[in-house]
Amino acid sequence: MNNKKVVLVIGAGDATGGAIAKRFAQEGFVACVTRRSADKLQPLVDSILADGGQAHGFACDARKEEEVVALVEQIENDIGPIEAFVFNIGANVPCSILEETARKYFKIWEMACFSGFLNAREVAIRMAKRQRGTILFTGATAGMRGAAGFAAFAGAKHGIRALAQSMARELGPMNIHVAHIIVDGAIDTDFIRNSFPEKYATKDQDGILNPEHIAENYWYLHSQPRDAWTFELDLRPWNERW
Amino acid sequence: MNNKKVVLVIGAGDATGGAIAKRFAQEGFVACVTRRSADKLQPLVDSILADGGQAHGFACDARKEEEVVALVEQIENDIGPIEAFVFNIGANVPCSILEETARKYFKIWEMACFSGFLNAREVAIRMAKRQRGTILFTGATAGMRGAAGFAAFAGAKHGIRALAQSMARELGPMNIHVAHIIVDGAIDTDFIRNSFPEKYATKDQDGILNPEHIAENYWYLHSQPRDAWTFELDLRPWNERW
Amino acid sequence: MNNKKVVLVIGAGDATGGAIAKRFAQEGFVACVTRRSADKLQPLVDSILADGGQAHGFACDARKEEEVVALVEQIENDIGPIEAFVFNIGANVPCSILEETARKYFKIWEMACFSGFLNAREVAIRMAKRQRGTILFTGATAGMRGAAGFAAFAGAKHGIRALAQSMARELGPMNIHVAHIIVDGAIDTDFIRNSFPEKYATKDQDGILNPEHIAENYWYLHSQPRDAWTFELDLRPWNERW
Amino acid sequence: MNNKKVVLVIGAGDATGGAIAKRFAQEGFVACVTRRSADKLQPLVDSILADGGQAHGFACDARKEEEVVALVEQIENDIGPIEAFVFNIGANVPCSILEETARKYFKIWEMACFSGFLNAREVAIRMAKRQRGTILFTGATAGMRGAAGFAAFAGAKHGIRALAQSMARELGPMNIHVAHIIVDGAIDTDFIRNSFPEKYATKDQDGILNPEHIAENYWYLHSQPRDAWTFELDLRPWNERW
Repeated sequence: MNNKKVVLVIGAGDATGGAIAKRFAQEGFVACVTRRSADKLQPLVDSILADGGQAHGFACDARKEEEVVALVEQIENDIGPIEAFVFNIGANVPCSILEETARKYFKIWEMACFSGFLNAREVAIRMAKRQRGTILFTGATAGMRGAAGFAAFAGAKHGIRALAQSMARELGPMNIHVAHIIVDGAIDTDFIRNSFPEKYATKDQDGILNPEHIAENYWYLHSQPRDAWTFELDLRPWNERW
Repeated sequence: MNNKKVVLVIGAGDATGGAIAKRFAQEGFVACVTRRSADKLQPLVDSILADGGQAHGFACDARKEEEVVALVEQIENDIGPIEAFVFNIGANVPCSILEETARKYFKIWEMACFSGFLNAREVAIRMAKRQRGTILFTGATAGMRGAAGFAAFAGAKHGIRALAQSMARELGPMNIHVAHIIVDGAIDTDFIRNSFPEKYATKDQDGILNPEHIAENYWYLHSQPRDAWTFELDLRPWNERW
Repeated sequence: MNNKKVVLVIGAGDATGGAIAKRFAQEGFVACVTRRSADKLQPLVDSILADGGQAHGFACDARKEEEVVALVEQIENDIGPIEAFVFNIGANVPCSILEETARKYFKIWEMACFSGFLNAREVAIRMAKRQRGTILFTGATAGMRGAAGFAAFAGAKHGIRALAQSMARELGPMNIHVAHIIVDGAIDTDFIRNSFPEKYATKDQDGILNPEHIAENYWYLHSQPRDAWTFELDLRPWNERW
Repeated sequence: MNNKKVVLVIGAGDATGGAIAKRFAQEGFVACVTRRSADKLQPLVDSILADGGQAHGFACDARKEEEVVALVEQIENDIGPIEAFVFNIGANVPCSILEETARKYFKIWEMACFSGFLNAREVAIRMAKRQRGTILFTGATAGMRGAAGFAAFAGAKHGIRALAQSMARELGPMNIHVAHIIVDGAIDTDFIRNSFPEKYATKDQDGILNPEHIAENYWYLHSQPRDAWTFELDLRPWNERW
């Protein structure tokens, strides 16, 4: 069944990653979605199947090279060539630099940057052989500039942007489209609802980002003809201060 | 006939500007297109009409405030509200800084930056009253960094980017979407065909930008829901060095 | 008397420009300082002379090419080769883009950018012949990004940065050091004292920039050996938010 | 002997780090210098002592938190307060992203970024208590943009810049000056002499950076009065292409 096109979404949570998987599934892609624990993936897989799409959930610790290599190998062998890849992991845990622990600084980088390298490289190796593919990274404002309390997260997000830019420059001429999407604003998630209720309340004025609208940009980037590829675009609500 | 939606394209040449006008016309917009001399506009207007669209050509010197004010007033009165605005003027004439003349330095800025201010401001005044609209600026790599021989062009393009960014920050909260598109590469034009034939020869490998593909991005930006607006994206061929 | 080294400071006001002229005069440079009206220059010239330095004041409208060309010619003929050049004009007049006039948008650019081009080019032509010299531009945060109400000033300051970068790339290999100093904060001037008294009150905690301290950086940049030239540095008070 | 001012240089190699230690020692600082192995430090310590300065060498694996904490503690207890801190580790090992190993990607980050965090945080904790100090990071062009073959190094250097920027914004208002020096060009080292002899041959035209000239900028940054602090400056030879 190797002629099916696959989108692999690393970090397919309830919001952005899940919406991206659904968007590609609507276009006939087999959505392969990963999280650390498989059970949380089932609702997403079920939802895609219910809409008539194809989807597979994989428990995978994106920071473990053997797991990543095995996952990519398995998908390519059993499901189909990975045509589009999305890296979407990374959560901020703000902290004064004076209190930041080595453990947390490392873990934020391992999760939000190192695993991006591991997964993207493994997929890029296959795409390079086929001379085709799309690699998309979810970025953040913290990837553009540091801020008080953001040393760890900004470091990881700067790292992922450097990775994206380095890959774009090397892999573009191999017909592989690498892009970096800067999400600058709060996304409609349970986290924002619970932790920033005042922010969440701006939802009815479109003050927080709708994951489906974010996802549309990933699909759009994948669809661009190769004479006019975008490396980077930003996304923010109309009334966001920046 | 004031309920028609208008797109106003300043600098509707044979390539990018014309393609943008056509793209919006396909979506039902009345395309109002301008150049300094009206005769060159007729083929574009005819082409849109032939496709079943609506279009009007206006000779307008975009650097002359009175002409600009009169044009915008006329369109809003006689045709309809300007819902989308595109500024697309600006040609580079490289020159050593040691030989650059005051006249040319001024003219490049007047054309590629000052006229952008004049036209965008005049349209923004109307959009602000309606609290809606899209304002799109065509940028260039020279708007991101200077280069030997590019002092004048880089100055103008930096200026237009500063204008776009300042307008985005002020007008976003008025529900007006301002964006800046960085075109980084040669476009499929007569100029490239005649002046850079080797570059043009890469067309069959998609090595130069197709104006229609550029135009698609302008339409896409206009279409973004307001909870996820892009301020800036870049466009370049897959095999372009950058 | 052609063996004297000259520093030419365009826009030698009471604060930064004047302090730069004094700093170079302390090192034995003949300070040639300009403003639009000569009378305001006399206190600066007198002050340098009183300190045992050499100085000449010139009334010159920096936006008028003939005046600029004549001034540079006169200095080079009568006083000595211009070894260092400083462009230091540019004042912000914030304004909503919806109310910005063509006249003011133009004048801010003409003053803060166009005159920078005119003067720097005229000096660069002489320096290029000698294959030596330093060209320094005073920049601002508005040269790095636009902001609501800053379209005109940001446009001019982006333009001057583009000019500086283009000149640095072209003239560096001619042994001419071009640099751009980003002043990010309020300077100790009468303007700040009168218009922003609360800001001015932070002076005793070093919350506003001392012109002499700014000037020290210009001298430092001029003094850098050519194997390690700086193109750009920023300056801000320790407690400034950025 | 706690009233001696200490400069701590992490990564005091033969070139830049060593030159910085010497420069501060000339100003009366006690130079505390570290490398992984102590024996290579002895020539540097001897050289500073021979010039009448004070210096101590410490073998320290900058990536090991316990070693770093113990080192900082020991210096502060036995020698004096760390007034200036310089992080200067980081070597590039270019590699196609398709062949980059997890081990090398990790090691480059661990060395050039993680150890920067560990050491700078540990010192910053002490400086914050005293509300004074200077923290300087050696950056690179790869910290500003990615490039083909540079994914790992660019990631680490982007991370260190994000760290520097985050620390500057948090610690500036605590009277701690954090700065980032972008070295853009080949430095006069054995590595360049042996690996890039053609580049090295440009030394007699000042085509490679002299470590002493680089070091001068670190001292200069440390010396800036706090009303006019620089966060970032770049350094490159006059004839470098950029």
